[in-house]
Amino acid sequence: MDESFVPFRGIKNDLKGRLQCYKQDWTGGIKAGFRILAPTTYIFFASAIPVISFGEQLERNTDGVLTAVQTLASTAICGIIHSIIGGQPLLILGVAEPTVIMYTFMFNFAKERQDLGRGLFLAWTGWVCVWTSILLFLLAILGACSIINRFTRLAGELFGLLIAMLFMQQAIKGLIDEFLIPKREDPSLTEFIPSWRFANGLFALVLSFGLLLTALRSRKARSWRYGTGWLRSLIADYGVPIMVLVWTAISYIPSGSIPKGIPRRLVSPNPWSPGAYQNWTVIKDMLDVPVIYILGAFVPATMIAVLYYFDHSVASQLAQQKEFNLRKPPSFHYDLLLLGFLTLMCGLLGIPPANGVIPQSPMHTKSLATLKHQLLRNRLVGTAKKSMAKNSSLGQLYGNMQEAYQQMQTPLIYQQQSSAGGLKELKESTIQLATSMGNIDAPVDETIFDVDKEIDELLPVEVKEQRVSNLLQAAMVGACVAAMPLLKMIPTSVLWGYFAFMAIESLPGNQFWERILLLFTSPGRRYKVLEEYHATFVETVPFKTIALFTLFQTAYLLVCFGITWVPIAGVLFPLMIMLLVPVRQYIMPKLFKGAFLQDLDASEFEESPALPFEVATEVETLGGTRVTYADDGEIMNEMITRSRGEIRRINSPKVTSSSSTPAQDLKSPRMSERAYSPRINELRAIKSPRTGEVRSSNLGKSKSEI
Amino acid sequence: MDESFVPFRGIKNDLKGRLQCYKQDWTGGIKAGFRILAPTTYIFFASAIPVISFGEQLERNTDGVLTAVQTLASTAICGIIHSIIGGQPLLILGVAEPTVIMYTFMFNFAKERQDLGRGLFLAWTGWVCVWTSILLFLLAILGACSIINRFTRLAGELFGLLIAMLFMQQAIKGLIDEFLIPKREDPSLTEFIPSWRFANGLFALVLSFGLLLTALRSRKARSWRYGTGWLRSLIADYGVPIMVLVWTAISYIPSGSIPKGIPRRLVSPNPWSPGAYQNWTVIKDMLDVPVIYILGAFVPATMIAVLYYFDHSVASQLAQQKEFNLRKPPSFHYDLLLLGFLTLMCGLLGIPPANGVIPQSPMHTKSLATLKHQLLRNRLVGTAKKSMAKNSSLGQLYGNMQEAYQQMQTPLIYQQQSSAGGLKELKESTIQLATSMGNIDAPVDETIFDVDKEIDELLPVEVKEQRVSNLLQAAMVGACVAAMPLLKMIPTSVLWGYFAFMAIESLPGNQFWERILLLFTSPGRRYKVLEEYHATFVETVPFKTIALFTLFQTAYLLVCFGITWVPIAGVLFPLMIMLLVPVRQYIMPKLFKGAFLQDLDASEFEESPALPFEVATEVETLGGTRVTYADDGEIMNEMITRSRGEIRRINSPKVTSSSSTPAQDLKSPRMSERAYSPRINELRAIKSPRTGEVRSSNLGKSKSEI
Repeated sequence: MDESFVPFRGIKNDLKGRLQCYKQDWTGGIKAGFRILAPTTYIFFASAIPVISFGEQLERNTDGVLTAVQTLASTAICGIIHSIIGGQPLLILGVAEPTVIMYTFMFNFAKERQDLGRGLFLAWTGWVCVWTSILLFLLAILGACSIINRFTRLAGELFGLLIAMLFMQQAIKGLIDEFLIPKREDPSLTEFIPSWRFANGLFALVLSFGLLLTALRSRKARSWRYGTGWLRSLIADYGVPIMVLVWTAISYIPSGSIPKGIPRRLVSPNPWSPGAYQNWTVIKDMLDVPVIYILGAFVPATMIAVLYYFDHSVASQLAQQKEFNLRKPPSFHYDLLLLGFLTLMCGLLGIPPANGVIPQSPMHTKSLATLKHQLLRNRLVGTAKKSMAKNSSLGQLYGNMQEAYQQMQTPLIYQQQSSAGGLKELKESTIQLATSMGNIDAPVDETIFDVDKEIDELLPVEVKEQRVSNLLQAAMVGACVAAMPLLKMIPTSVLWGYFAFMAIESLPGNQFWERILLLFTSPGRRYKVLEEYHATFVETVPFKTIALFTLFQTAYLLVCFGITWVPIAGVLFPLMIMLLVPVRQYIMPKLFKGAFLQDLDASEFEESPALPFEVATEVETLGGTRVTYADDGEIMNEMITRSRGEIRRINSPKVTSSSSTPAQDLKSPRMSERAYSPRINELRAIKSPRTGEVRSSNLGKSKSEI
Repeated sequence: MDESFVPFRGIKNDLKGRLQCYKQDWTGGIKAGFRILAPTTYIFFASAIPVISFGEQLERNTDGVLTAVQTLASTAICGIIHSIIGGQPLLILGVAEPTVIMYTFMFNFAKERQDLGRGLFLAWTGWVCVWTSILLFLLAILGACSIINRFTRLAGELFGLLIAMLFMQQAIKGLIDEFLIPKREDPSLTEFIPSWRFANGLFALVLSFGLLLTALRSRKARSWRYGTGWLRSLIADYGVPIMVLVWTAISYIPSGSIPKGIPRRLVSPNPWSPGAYQNWTVIKDMLDVPVIYILGAFVPATMIAVLYYFDHSVASQLAQQKEFNLRKPPSFHYDLLLLGFLTLMCGLLGIPPANGVIPQSPMHTKSLATLKHQLLRNRLVGTAKKSMAKNSSLGQLYGNMQEAYQQMQTPLIYQQQSSAGGLKELKESTIQLATSMGNIDAPVDETIFDVDKEIDELLPVEVKEQRVSNLLQAAMVGACVAAMPLLKMIPTSVLWGYFAFMAIESLPGNQFWERILLLFTSPGRRYKVLEEYHATFVETVPFKTIALFTLFQTAYLLVCFGITWVPIAGVLFPLMIMLLVPVRQYIMPKLFKGAFLQDLDASEFEESPALPFEVATEVETLGGTRVTYADDGEIMNEMITRSRGEIRRINSPKVTSSSSTPAQDLKSPRMSERAYSPRINELRAIKSPRTGEVRSSNLGKSKSEI
């Protein structure tokens, strides 16, 4: 992306790029069939549960003016519109914690003004949204998103970790509140006598930790040793919703003398109760707002505009990280423009606006990468099995697989580069296999080419980019409004557990987080970081520099977190993060050596270029080749959640690390892992005749010695 | 061991063997220094906590006649005596669950007889112990332990799993009881109103699961990535006691309006309260027991004798399994004789007798193997570092290490075989290293020989066999009697968590358990069992046979477990397990093919012979070569807890499994892992010149194609 600020150019480019693949966005999604439901449900829960809980928070903070019904409605409407006419369909929209903080501040301001009050609060926020949308339009049109490539890892990951901290804070606060009497409840109820309150708090501990631990376990189900493949897949794909159901069921086990209010459950009005829709007619009250407040609304509007500009762009950026190898173009400018319209609409409807959310957006991309992997895998396994049934040689087998892979690629090339990426990967690995196994022309059988396992190693990371999952999840969030009586059965403590789960799920892959962990890793084990995460900076940057850089970032994070606690200035925290951009560009190069800084926090344009996109006829098998052994996403999970920064092959590093040369590996900085194994093989090939002699002679000696 | 039933011969042999190494039993232990405290504390907790809890159980069941003071006293006295004059010092003595069951049955019998009653109960059990000890003397003298090698894995592991089930049952029962009103308490107390009871139960859930999960985690501390080496070592060694402290501290956090009885804590009399010693003068009441009951005491005595004969021998056998490579001789006959004396003594003192316990005894051996590994490791690392500082070649380095290892071995050979075992292992690995690395004569540096990691791979499993840890732990159990007021601070729920921890800790390494898990492993992942546990039977025995064998064993286990629930016949369950010996010998060979049966359940004489013992000057470094990087036992943990049946090298299987030949590996049955790597290296050496060509030509093609 070049930094051109010519009006409308960015929007035009975005539209051009996305329109090219718009049809494929739908056909590709629909062709994936029922499997699309796995990422959809996963994201639906990740999206709906926080939104419900933020609704609860808003209800407390705004004396019931805004409830979970409004937050759900906003999330659903904005989500549906964005998934249909938005630019980047990987981006998930929702009412976010910063929005809740902003609305709370505005309510506290409005309710104390005589000529605004509780009655005109929503009308006034309508004006705030009007101003916000105007600012967003301007930012979008003038190409403010062109500087998005200056938002390096530094700012993005710091923001991600801040959101994780806010989630975790909410989980802890929620759990502590379970031991206390809620503000708006009658303290004379049986359930609020000390003994029942204590029991309620402990029950909340059990339920939330139960959910957290089982949900974390279930995400790793693919690599379990036990159970059949389909069961493991089911648990890995739907484990989190299943666990919410299970722990909700468990919350109903204690009965008898236990009062009805234990454990505490969600409080929200029925969407069809009278008055639930009173705020949907906000637009006609807007002219009653005094002019001074209409103008004054510009102040919070600038804050929200800055917040949304940053939050929306970073969420989109995190959903499109390099290692996902996306084929379709980004759409920052156009999406910001659309966000302006959505904000305007929400303001006029009297509901809090939704924007791009972290960590749901990157979670969405990850789950779609798993899906794509499953689809590619099924196709290639089928091809390989067919080939082997025909007694093909490894060369022919490879050829057939290449062909199948090609068929799943597509002719229309979006960018200039060739489509060699994925294919080359496939070729290199296969040949490596052939050479280590022996004759390349002999018929291949399962002992030489273990289909189920080898193919996982051949497949590159690719993402099933489409609009269906986003549309479906938004529609399901909308359905939640109708399902409110069912949702009310969920104990609040399960929500707190889920919040903690979301916070923890967003950590792996965040290089900032991994560097923090690295500070606590004993020196002798730092090589393990290299093994697991393939973080090249461990090899190339001195530890002191890494530590200093990380400590600086941590201090900055803590300052940002501290600011959110300050009553009114708290809304300024997005400014703090925005400030990181000039800090990174002008101040940090003076503190750190350029090369190190680039390894730790490469600007986008310094990183390797994205793989090209090829639209059109993505042919994917749907049950055509059914594979019973379905531990598909296992390797995928690892590959995606564990490694950002560079794409890597899982297998080779394992070989090198468990063979006895890790120390040597560490000495060869910046040697990509893909290059490791062949090189070692070559070394062997050269040395073995001689060392073979050495060994045999020494073995003889050792025997005679003893 | 030959099956000779010549009176006294077994005892004489045992004494002769153990006397030879008696002095070394003490010197070796003392020379290990402060490090001996790690296994000591570990076993002390594993021994004391169940004994305290069994004391509580007995107190309830015997209306307070027997309490934790008596069970602790018995465990301490018997333990001290056994550790000093016993045969096998690896064997841990304690009052066990079966003894509690027996005493409960006897109390229920006695309290209903007019001429016995509560008053003469202990005097009558004195007579039972007299008869039991006579039977044990006879069994020991006549050499009944000679048939111990017919107690195959089948019976021993079934018994181990049964004990684990009893522990787990106690944990679950204890937790459920936390929700109910205890029998002997006043139900009108505040803490027993429904709300506080519910709170107490939930608190118990939190505390017990908290202890269980953190204790399980802490045992794996050595392989954590974080924290410095000494911290990880500390947590791994003392994690369980630390966690008991931590969770006890947490139980004191809730205060204010919470009644004193929540959470419930241990109930036991102060040992210095009046009346606590009234039963220590049982001997003078014994003549008051009517003759008919003196004779009748023979019936329960036979049961206890059978139980102790089996339990004591199996505990001893499990503590001396083949894969521990023990150097010192066993002592089944003499230990049974001593157990007779101990039982007599306990009977006359009016305390329940102690016998060899599972799983504490094998836990003891495991922890001593970790200790020995640390000692060996420190010495070898020191030697290697010194050599490398002198620019030695790999050959010289190896020579120096061999010498150091030799010094820690000892000249006096107990058995006929040579001491080549451990040394050969060392040599093979080193040479393998040399050949794969290049020139064997060049100076070695850290890149070629990573001291900290390589040495772990060179070391064989060895156990620090000595008497000090056993003596110390028994003395500490004795000190518990005095520390009763402190122990009373421990919440009962922490005990239940600890029970569950003990049950789970005893599972890994139990091949029966691993076979049960195998039944639930999906077929595609069974090769992982081979990788992790090196269970050769997976390669050699058809899965159907494994499944059938395991199902038979499981059914038998469930029958045994069911019998313990039957009110009076329950005490017969040791007979059921004894019955397994003839079943294995005469019936099972008709159901299963001989070769398969041998792979699944080899009789002792069919397995490989033990490594020889060499007594005397075990020179071990104590802080002489301090190694800062102390992740010592990490590999050890894995090696010992995960693999029984055969000794294995950790590293080689990993190389083979992550290289691309697992399918081929599975096809080569019974090929020992030690042989894998060299063979693969040879294959490479032969093939590489040709395959190198193939690869390079193909690489060229792939480039031109794209």
